[in-house]
Amino acid sequence: MFRKILYPTDFSDCAVKAREYVKKLKEAGTEEVVIVYVIDVREMAAMASGVPGFGEMPVTYDYEVQKMVRANIEKELEELKTEIETAGLKVSVKTPEGNPHKEILKIAEDEDVSLIVLGSHGKSNLKGMLLGSVSEKVIRGSKRPVLVIKRD
Amino acid sequence: MFRKILYPTDFSDCAVKAREYVKKLKEAGTEEVVIVYVIDVREMAAMASGVPGFGEMPVTYDYEVQKMVRANIEKELEELKTEIETAGLKVSVKTPEGNPHKEILKIAEDEDVSLIVLGSHGKSNLKGMLLGSVSEKVIRGSKRPVLVIKRD
Repeated sequence: MFRKILYPTDFSDCAVKAREYVKKLKEAGTEEVVIVYVIDVREMAAMASGVPGFGEMPVTYDYEVQKMVRANIEKELEELKTEIETAGLKVSVKTPEGNPHKEILKIAEDEDVSLIVLGSHGKSNLKGMLLGSVSEKVIRGSKRPVLVIKRD
Repeated sequence: MFRKILYPTDFSDCAVKAREYVKKLKEAGTEEVVIVYVIDVREMAAMASGVPGFGEMPVTYDYEVQKMVRANIEKELEELKTEIETAGLKVSVKTPEGNPHKEILKIAEDEDVSLIVLGSHGKSNLKGMLLGSVSEKVIRGSKRPVLVIKRD
């Protein structure tokens, strides 16, 4: 019932807590894990233009920063892949660009996963209640079962 | 990791879909299921006073209706208990009175469950976004992992 799982991560505290469950899911019959890290292009654009003074940097500098950020993400994903493989699971990694919850839901369908494992901070503020966090949007929009893991 | 699970039900379509997962969780190592049906006292009071003409019924009638509703719920819970026991799981049933999400979260702590299995309709309307359904409140408030199962 949990053969193939989708594990979206942004390397936040919540996602790291969920990772422990991803590894333990082998006991519950999981064989395969699809790791997803969505490159939020809007966030990258905001990083380059929203920070005072930063938007005035030459374009080449902006490009260099993005390249560094991506290289760092890829290194972290490679380490994560190894860690989950060591737990005895088959692992693939996807790094789509776009709107996080939409990309996560799209890959859940494309990869026909049996479960999505999500970290959540469980905080609720007015903005969170009105707009919803990425986790809440995935829970709402998913047609597939979602295992929600809270940060301690 | 999923040894003891909490399964809140209101016998809605969503909860029935989640029930199939509850039974299958035996494969994933589940041994024990706590079924919770919260008797929503505010809903019962509304039933008795909110329906035009109904509030004018004699108190004894109101009491008879509540007794019938409860007898029916208990019969359904007994059938559900047998069904899950037949799947090879140990089952206990709780029918607290109160506010549904608060009672569910309280029992999750008191019974020290490893997982809450929740049905969800996945609809989102303005009221749902502002106030949240029982499922959303449980997901937000739970310190324990929650498995959210969508209705087809």
